[in-house]
Amino acid sequence: MEKLRVPALSYAMETLHVLNHGGLLLASTDKGGHYNVMTIGWGLLGTLWRLPFFLVAVRPSRYTHGLIEATGVFTVNVPAKGMEDITDFCGSVSGRDVDKFKEKGLTALLGKNVKAPIIAECPINYECQVLYKANIQREGLHEKIVEAIYPKGSYHTLYFGEILTAWADPDAKERIPL
Amino acid sequence: MEKLRVPALSYAMETLHVLNHGGLLLASTDKGGHYNVMTIGWGLLGTLWRLPFFLVAVRPSRYTHGLIEATGVFTVNVPAKGMEDITDFCGSVSGRDVDKFKEKGLTALLGKNVKAPIIAECPINYECQVLYKANIQREGLHEKIVEAIYPKGSYHTLYFGEILTAWADPDAKERIPL
Repeated sequence: MEKLRVPALSYAMETLHVLNHGGLLLASTDKGGHYNVMTIGWGLLGTLWRLPFFLVAVRPSRYTHGLIEATGVFTVNVPAKGMEDITDFCGSVSGRDVDKFKEKGLTALLGKNVKAPIIAECPINYECQVLYKANIQREGLHEKIVEAIYPKGSYHTLYFGEILTAWADPDAKERIPL
Repeated sequence: MEKLRVPALSYAMETLHVLNHGGLLLASTDKGGHYNVMTIGWGLLGTLWRLPFFLVAVRPSRYTHGLIEATGVFTVNVPAKGMEDITDFCGSVSGRDVDKFKEKGLTALLGKNVKAPIIAECPINYECQVLYKANIQREGLHEKIVEAIYPKGSYHTLYFGEILTAWADPDAKERIPL
C-alpha cells in the first residue's frame, strides 16, 4: 500500500498520543548511508518561524547525536499496534553495537527530502531538517527539572527539525494504538 | 457552562490548527495582577522531561516578555469562531498602550494553578509554568531562518511551559474554527 503525503500537522493528536504510550522511532543516518533508530518518549510538534516543526531532544552520549550532528536531518516514525517489542528494543540497545534495522527486520525507505530513512512499517512518518539546535543550558532550567532529570548534568541537545514532508498510510488511524 | 479539566494534550490537533489559522491568545500577568494578552501564530506542543509542555516564543521587545520574566507563568487560549477581530486586535496593539481585556470585553478567569488569567470566551485553555527558558542563539540557526526572520537580530526567547492544567468547554470542538 502506497504512503500518502499529508499536511505536516494533520496527525498531531495520534503522534503525541503514541509518543506518550510506548514511544516513537527517531531514525538517522551517517554520511555513508548507515542508518540508526532509537526510541523517544519526548518531542514537541507545532509551528515556528512560519514552518511546521518537530523538536526532539538527544543526549550527546547517544549514537544518534553524532549522526544528526553530521547530517543535520532525521525522521520521526509512529509505530503501529504490535510493534511494541521493536520500540522496547530500540530504546534499550545502542546503534554502536547493533544494526537495529537489520536485527528487527525494519524496512528503510529513502526519504523524499532528507537522506535519513523513513520506516516502512510505521504508518506515519516525518522527514525533518534541523533549522535550529541548542544545548540545554543549566541557568535557564527550573530546579525541579535539574533534580528530576539532570542530577549528573549531561544536558540534552534540542534539535528543531522543519517537517519537510509528512507521510501516512491510508489505514494509519486504524493501525495506531489509540 | 462550566469548563472541564481535560488531559493536557487531548485537544492538540484543534489547538495546532487554530494556531495556524488566525492564532492563539497568550495571556500573562504582572506581579500586581495587571493582565495582558497577545496573539501568537507560533508554538509547539508535546511532552518533554516526562511532562506535557507548551513552548512559546516571545521577542524581548514585547510587553508580554517582561510579564513572563517577572512571574514565570502564562496561559494559552484557543479562540472560538467569531473572535477573529479579537485575535487581529491583540496582535496589532501593545499592552503598554491599551488594556486589551477591557477594550475587547474579555473575561479573565483566575487560573487554578497559575496567576496568569485564562480567557473565559476561549473554549480551550492551557495554564503553564515556565520550567525552561533560553534565548535563541545565532550560532545554532540555519541561514534560511536568519535571513527570513532575524535580518536585524532581536532573537526570540523560548519559554517552555509545563501545562499544569488544561481546560475545555463541553462544546469546544463545535466552537473551534476547523
